[in-house]
Amino acid sequence: MKVNNVEIEDTYAETFSTYIGRILITASTRRWALASAQEAKGLGASATMGPAEAGIEQEAQVTETPDGRPGYVLQVGHRQKEELNYWLVARIRKGVVPVPTTAAFNAMPRELTQYYIEIDGTPIRYFGDGYEEPVNLYEREVYKIPRMDGFFYIERKLGVTKGVAGGNFLILGESPAATLMAAEVAADAIREVDYVFMPCAGGVAASGTKVGGKTYKDAVATTNDPYCACIADRVKDTRIPKGVSCTYEIFVNGLSLESVKKAMRLGIKAATTVGGVKLITACNYGGKLGKTLISLHEVCRDLE
Amino acid sequence: MKVNNVEIEDTYAETFSTYIGRILITASTRRWALASAQEAKGLGASATMGPAEAGIEQEAQVTETPDGRPGYVLQVGHRQKEELNYWLVARIRKGVVPVPTTAAFNAMPRELTQYYIEIDGTPIRYFGDGYEEPVNLYEREVYKIPRMDGFFYIERKLGVTKGVAGGNFLILGESPAATLMAAEVAADAIREVDYVFMPCAGGVAASGTKVGGKTYKDAVATTNDPYCACIADRVKDTRIPKGVSCTYEIFVNGLSLESVKKAMRLGIKAATTVGGVKLITACNYGGKLGKTLISLHEVCRDLE
Amino acid sequence: MKVNNVEIEDTYAETFSTYIGRILITASTRRWALASAQEAKGLGASATMGPAEAGIEQEAQVTETPDGRPGYVLQVGHRQKEELNYWLVARIRKGVVPVPTTAAFNAMPRELTQYYIEIDGTPIRYFGDGYEEPVNLYEREVYKIPRMDGFFYIERKLGVTKGVAGGNFLILGESPAATLMAAEVAADAIREVDYVFMPCAGGVAASGTKVGGKTYKDAVATTNDPYCACIADRVKDTRIPKGVSCTYEIFVNGLSLESVKKAMRLGIKAATTVGGVKLITACNYGGKLGKTLISLHEVCRDLE
Amino acid sequence: MKVNNVEIEDTYAETFSTYIGRILITASTRRWALASAQEAKGLGASATMGPAEAGIEQEAQVTETPDGRPGYVLQVGHRQKEELNYWLVARIRKGVVPVPTTAAFNAMPRELTQYYIEIDGTPIRYFGDGYEEPVNLYEREVYKIPRMDGFFYIERKLGVTKGVAGGNFLILGESPAATLMAAEVAADAIREVDYVFMPCAGGVAASGTKVGGKTYKDAVATTNDPYCACIADRVKDTRIPKGVSCTYEIFVNGLSLESVKKAMRLGIKAATTVGGVKLITACNYGGKLGKTLISLHEVCRDLE
Repeated sequence: MKVNNVEIEDTYAETFSTYIGRILITASTRRWALASAQEAKGLGASATMGPAEAGIEQEAQVTETPDGRPGYVLQVGHRQKEELNYWLVARIRKGVVPVPTTAAFNAMPRELTQYYIEIDGTPIRYFGDGYEEPVNLYEREVYKIPRMDGFFYIERKLGVTKGVAGGNFLILGESPAATLMAAEVAADAIREVDYVFMPCAGGVAASGTKVGGKTYKDAVATTNDPYCACIADRVKDTRIPKGVSCTYEIFVNGLSLESVKKAMRLGIKAATTVGGVKLITACNYGGKLGKTLISLHEVCRDLE
Repeated sequence: MKVNNVEIEDTYAETFSTYIGRILITASTRRWALASAQEAKGLGASATMGPAEAGIEQEAQVTETPDGRPGYVLQVGHRQKEELNYWLVARIRKGVVPVPTTAAFNAMPRELTQYYIEIDGTPIRYFGDGYEEPVNLYEREVYKIPRMDGFFYIERKLGVTKGVAGGNFLILGESPAATLMAAEVAADAIREVDYVFMPCAGGVAASGTKVGGKTYKDAVATTNDPYCACIADRVKDTRIPKGVSCTYEIFVNGLSLESVKKAMRLGIKAATTVGGVKLITACNYGGKLGKTLISLHEVCRDLE
Repeated sequence: MKVNNVEIEDTYAETFSTYIGRILITASTRRWALASAQEAKGLGASATMGPAEAGIEQEAQVTETPDGRPGYVLQVGHRQKEELNYWLVARIRKGVVPVPTTAAFNAMPRELTQYYIEIDGTPIRYFGDGYEEPVNLYEREVYKIPRMDGFFYIERKLGVTKGVAGGNFLILGESPAATLMAAEVAADAIREVDYVFMPCAGGVAASGTKVGGKTYKDAVATTNDPYCACIADRVKDTRIPKGVSCTYEIFVNGLSLESVKKAMRLGIKAATTVGGVKLITACNYGGKLGKTLISLHEVCRDLE
Repeated sequence: MKVNNVEIEDTYAETFSTYIGRILITASTRRWALASAQEAKGLGASATMGPAEAGIEQEAQVTETPDGRPGYVLQVGHRQKEELNYWLVARIRKGVVPVPTTAAFNAMPRELTQYYIEIDGTPIRYFGDGYEEPVNLYEREVYKIPRMDGFFYIERKLGVTKGVAGGNFLILGESPAATLMAAEVAADAIREVDYVFMPCAGGVAASGTKVGGKTYKDAVATTNDPYCACIADRVKDTRIPKGVSCTYEIFVNGLSLESVKKAMRLGIKAATTVGGVKLITACNYGGKLGKTLISLHEVCRDLE
């Protein structure tokens, strides 16, 4: 199958379920809302070694937010419930509470909500040291917590869904520059899809991984050597076609399978518009990791 | 003492020693270097609950970097050595390794280096799965690790110093907007000082804390209620003068006491140029927390 | 009338008709589209002395653009038809043609179009030096013009409407910082309204003017001294109320009266949320300049 | 001659003298200084059809500016003295005066100054309508002009030098993406050189021109068809080597020949580090246009 003359391999991404929280961060001005969203998103490229996955989903307009202020929607995800519960709270405590003029609201659609994280027993509430109060605001139950620049408002219950992680595709190109431009273009396109987030910085991953290691057996994850063009001559099972010198991967997670598929479709289509792209494929683990497979040929249907 | 007609309280910031690593992140283009630096800095406002403190110190020019590419200098700090060692590596593994075209170098001045973190035994090296090689490059010992977009280079030894944390001052103003502008101006100025970093997003903290809690005795840190104007009428030991409605705090850490003092001086001077600022003071714990005190009157000497 | 406790003066903005072109600039990546839009917008704060008014209206999504690439919508306006015709072409020739990977399309809604500027007889077409070709693309008639990085595509006919200029309101605040934050918040809000643009950099004007001069009789426009708090004691007809130290003005033009009114409503509402704002009013010339008046009380109806 | 394995053609850029003004724009915060600099720079890619050339030279630190505030250095250039005089004033009047909290200072080194533009007889001074005053500030003679947000300060005499225009080089690459990345990297590097500016948006020109036209004899400038790969088969005197599909040009002007040469050297060196670049050359007119030639081999000396 070809899209814009670029070969789309007949393979699939392998997704698995993950817990995801979705919050709205608002502030007095758009740039302080962004500063908070970036801080709260940071160090969120992957959950191994680190504090859960996170990504900025989209800008929220002043006509859409409860307090009429500019904002950003942030998603945080982790496969383990306890870890998600811990890090969603920690990311708000460290990435939102300290930032001038911010507030935080639940942004999980009610119909997708599987359970709520309650702010009551968390360090966010205890930060108030007894001066905090539960109040009703904008038809929501929020905590009103004193901060040096005024009251910080945070919704008391933050919804969590069982979403989808592992959406991905690989872009193989003839030069590093062409491949990177295609990856950037794909990430630009995916930013416009609702309910999904890309955990990597700038939406692009240079360091694709395989589970475990060939040489280092105990390693959790090591370089995806079959897709490393720079060592293609040393890798027996290399997947690098002739004429390809670079690979980038786009990861996309989201609240639903539909939104992740839509993001993959839009991203792949955009990537194929850049000259020098040779192949689009995807990472999977032969069905061992995840139960739900996303076929590239299915998501690209009618793009030919 | 007054600077630009703003009262500087005769008090001090209370600093303590902390372990700090300082690395240089470079990339093909300035914006990918920045994307990596922001991701690696993220969730770095404070070390409680989270993955160490971190901040972007400064832009590095192409004429200054080993590989002649644009870059940013990042500092990571933690009071506990083991934690710093873990999170410096984790921040590179998750914030630099995945980002297109990046490399990472040691940027700790040799004369300040107290020990080195070796990349050899870490997940960064094992990521190479046996394809990685130690090489000499730019007169440095680096690892050359295959990644999907080419080789990732990282210096093998990253220097750590015993630096200074806890530099701070508080800006009290007559309106939230004036106080925030003063804080932003102060942070702009401090960004120009070498060897220091501000852990908070945008350089400004709205959520100053006190150690422990009055009501919640078990809490690690709670709102700095004496400086919360919004509850001044409920706080017995309020420190809010008449006419003040807002407080922001600037935190600054650094490799040396001199650089932290210089940053405080420049930041305070800048803050006092904004109309509506009423008082500059600092947080301390009566000498219980840190051994080295930075007197505001000393750092502001000759600014009157 | 009060909105969020801020007095809205019972006055009006005085609008006049102006010729406006509206184009869509696309590029391979969002940031090159933005670089082009900013260059083409520049020096567009006002038409006196300069090259017409211009402003970026909004971001265009990849699902909305003819070529499926990221883009920005730019408006250019001038009261005189010949001037608009000249500068719309010049702004494209100098702000879009030179920028890597760009294309330009007509974005004027057909039902509003009063006439078309034809690219045929302009320096943009002649730039092709005979190598250019008229082609059909995306169901539009475009010129295909060779450039060093490939073909530049531009729609052959760019629609012009008779739109509305002179939408404005003044924000008076107790401190410069509060007034500036309110102005920034208002501009943030107005950026979300379709079909309007703010010609000033950042959307905010510090240098409001009056027509002509009191002292310099020949001047086209001079400082709006009744609203200059810094000389209130020297201006007989000062309009500065007690407690006000700063004024900012928001200008908004647009394709229709409705969209300009909507922008003013949203902007005023947003400005009043910032503490320290004392009065919202508007500039007019007693009906001498423009025929269509926009009453502040009318646009703020039901906001009380 | 080869630099990083990229062929450097043995040719030259042809420079000519041009009048240049250099001003420093400061503001309360860095982002308002930047908003002003961008507006004042806009529509400055070339002087034909338009309002002179302009470019942001560099960021100015708070420790370097007369008023201790953050700033940017802007250059404006034109071959004709009268045009430069007009547009330097117009760019300040329209790009600096209206922007919140700005001030403008002369930044032309005294030893390079050939004459001064006096603000006295210009619309900037008359904007004050008699309320303006000449004062001494920061050891400079400035006008203090009332604006709605306070006083606007502008130095009374702005120095002009006879500088150098026409510095340039062409980057030819195997793919558009590689060529664009190389151009971006070159522009990143040149931004670090003092006393020079790049007039194009983002520093990169896609629309190189030749003087006059082959088909359209009356045209002032038309597409540089010998360097358009997309029509190489139709252009008799094409200069596109086999394997090249894209060309970008970097223009650089500056206060002195030395600084322009330094910028070209640094930019070329940076461009050659990107894979896929095939040839660096330069535009000239056989010595007809300019008297001072800059040899590529000379500026690249010792880079081999």
